[in-house]
Amino acid sequence: MYCILVYDINEKRVTKVLKKCREYLNWIQNSVFEGYLTKAQVIDLGASLDKIINEEEDSIVIFKLQSDKYITKEIKGIDKSDLTSNFV
Amino acid sequence: MYCILVYDINEKRVTKVLKKCREYLNWIQNSVFEGYLTKAQVIDLGASLDKIINEEEDSIVIFKLQSDKYITKEIKGIDKSDLTSNFV
Repeated sequence: MYCILVYDINEKRVTKVLKKCREYLNWIQNSVFEGYLTKAQVIDLGASLDKIINEEEDSIVIFKLQSDKYITKEIKGIDKSDLTSNFV
Repeated sequence: MYCILVYDINEKRVTKVLKKCREYLNWIQNSVFEGYLTKAQVIDLGASLDKIINEEEDSIVIFKLQSDKYITKEIKGIDKSDLTSNFV
């Protein structure tokens, strides 16, 4: 499925979260990732992030769509991602 | 339509961008907004942001969906938004 992940993490843990997200997703811009994951990968990533974050201080939101066919993406200014996305 | 807006803005302009986004959307967490906009509102917001940002330095990505019916949202840790979303 197509995922957009955004995080707001205490700086003590942000490097670990960034590294973990990079294993699964494409970086778009500061604290935002996107990419295609299987259900198993979503579960794996979620479990890994659960081990890193402090639930009292940190926040992660994962938007999940079955397909990117319903979404369009508008970019203003710099496109910071390296991704050559197929649905811009 | 349902929109997710993420920004990465030079601190000189970030307050103006934040204020403008708040006029149209609901804040979710650091530099992330969501909400329902008409096509006209998307155009208005875009035009306002174009006037504020520096296209060489700043980046805004707006994800647009016709409906939220295809999207699910998973929150880890704190739900920083005030929004009582109807599709969590």
